[in-house]
Amino acid sequence: MVSVAVIGAGAVGGYYGALLARAGHDVRFLMRSNLAEVRKGGLDVRSIRGDFRLPAVSAFATPEEIGPADWVVCSLKATAVGEAQELVAPCVGPNTRVLALMNGLGIEERFADWFGADRIFGGMAFVCINRGDPGVIHHLEYGRISIGHFQDVPAELAELEVLLESAQIEVTAAPSLRYARWEKLCWNIPFNGLSVAGGGIGTQTIVRDGPMRATAERAMREVISIGNADLSMAGSSARLDPDAVVDWMFAQTDTMGEYRTSMAIDFVLGREMESEAILGEPLRRAAHLGVAAPTVETLYALVRAAGLRNRGEISALTPGDLEVTPPSVV
Amino acid sequence: MVSVAVIGAGAVGGYYGALLARAGHDVRFLMRSNLAEVRKGGLDVRSIRGDFRLPAVSAFATPEEIGPADWVVCSLKATAVGEAQELVAPCVGPNTRVLALMNGLGIEERFADWFGADRIFGGMAFVCINRGDPGVIHHLEYGRISIGHFQDVPAELAELEVLLESAQIEVTAAPSLRYARWEKLCWNIPFNGLSVAGGGIGTQTIVRDGPMRATAERAMREVISIGNADLSMAGSSARLDPDAVVDWMFAQTDTMGEYRTSMAIDFVLGREMESEAILGEPLRRAAHLGVAAPTVETLYALVRAAGLRNRGEISALTPGDLEVTPPSVV
Repeated sequence: MVSVAVIGAGAVGGYYGALLARAGHDVRFLMRSNLAEVRKGGLDVRSIRGDFRLPAVSAFATPEEIGPADWVVCSLKATAVGEAQELVAPCVGPNTRVLALMNGLGIEERFADWFGADRIFGGMAFVCINRGDPGVIHHLEYGRISIGHFQDVPAELAELEVLLESAQIEVTAAPSLRYARWEKLCWNIPFNGLSVAGGGIGTQTIVRDGPMRATAERAMREVISIGNADLSMAGSSARLDPDAVVDWMFAQTDTMGEYRTSMAIDFVLGREMESEAILGEPLRRAAHLGVAAPTVETLYALVRAAGLRNRGEISALTPGDLEVTPPSVV
Repeated sequence: MVSVAVIGAGAVGGYYGALLARAGHDVRFLMRSNLAEVRKGGLDVRSIRGDFRLPAVSAFATPEEIGPADWVVCSLKATAVGEAQELVAPCVGPNTRVLALMNGLGIEERFADWFGADRIFGGMAFVCINRGDPGVIHHLEYGRISIGHFQDVPAELAELEVLLESAQIEVTAAPSLRYARWEKLCWNIPFNGLSVAGGGIGTQTIVRDGPMRATAERAMREVISIGNADLSMAGSSARLDPDAVVDWMFAQTDTMGEYRTSMAIDFVLGREMESEAILGEPLRRAAHLGVAAPTVETLYALVRAAGLRNRGEISALTPGDLEVTPPSVV
């Protein structure tokens, strides 16, 4: 039995934490919303892989109550990365390892600064999960986690792989975490970006429309260029093969149905989007590396503008604005 | 007195036609909507340059009733260019000259094919006009028309200049029509494009936001590259000076207030947008010339998608789509 602190028990943390708890591990959840309901009624997972209930769940309001654990799974939204240090630190003892199960670029770097590089892991969840009523998690599709160790030490990575597989979680161990992050961005940047810039549209709508499909591919090739420059500068020999990545990503997307990206869901529900982690940070990396990425820059500007509209910081015209008021007759 | 057939008496044709009629010219309007009202009540122009009424207006339902005129002003929306030949032809006699007062690229080329190159002129209106109640035109801002002759013959252009100035219309005579078209596209492509892709936003919102301003500039520089390649291929010695054009366009836009582009207005009102004339045709020219324009291509894909959404051909998510329906309990 391994002790696991789950920091950020939203849909992703709740789901994977519940799988680990079901497997018999000592899982302690940090919860903001739904704490009382979960303490009273446990967690209810309704999953395409089979429903299950955890009647008794260790849920806490502060990380101090959780204390040091063998593993910390930090599944905060990337927009909350600023709070991660404060929330994770009380759970980190001398031998604790930390998995940042979060979207975007530059996440593990910050964890490594805070807690030391050798204990940091990154994870990317390929999964569709929503929260329902308090204490209820809906697992709708997929479920695989791609993992890497911040220093790419295979023996370290094997330990995390064993832990996750003990909970029947499908795992891919990436030889290079940096490569894996860029590989995920090859999908996330074009499809999250276009899904929001296109007004909240699904992935089939994008891939079936000629000009949007071409834009997705152009964005993807720009991401590949930035990623390869970044891998090169980091001294990694791993490279993204442009044609192979494009072919594979589109083959996957063509057959996956009208998938709603997390960013489109956040946009439509008026929630904060992970624009900086998914688009802004890769573009800052591109600027630093001197790689041009005009398509990605355009998507970033428009996704950012969509967030400003959602927050009422800029406003769009409405039909009412366009009624001409005739000058009064004197 | 000159006879003028105005084909497409919407806001633009109605306004400039009314100015020509006020100056004593024999102006005959082709009208689809509001024909009965205008025949009965005339035209009522409410203008920042001074209101005026034309109690008796020559308005017709078919171009055959209008017949050949000295000048044809074709002010159809660019989306209706397919109907232009049929509507203009009955008004073209041996000595008729034709002014295509329309947005976008490739317009005069089609008129030249239909009616002969030497009689074709192009015009770009820099003006903000709306139609109000039937027979009422609101002129809100600006008013200048930039004109060029399809073959750039100065003596021909001078005749059109005289006609328009006789009606107190501010005119700029462009030595090169092709140059003038591209110069207008340098503004229209970034600002019409972003105003729609940004969800129906105004120009101040664009220029005051760092990433959108940078995107507008990047798009403008792409348009300049396409335009210069096009001018070069056409054997013209005219060139757009990138820094000078960018500086001038942004200086104008920075001081012009929260301008609502025609495309944003069309988008918000659910009307057909001039996407092909303003974005699609310049991109086809770019492809033909081998000039890369990734920012413009992205804007085109998103403006086109906005039109598909407006027509219900693709659909965006709504918050209601995102309510998870819990599986029924058996």
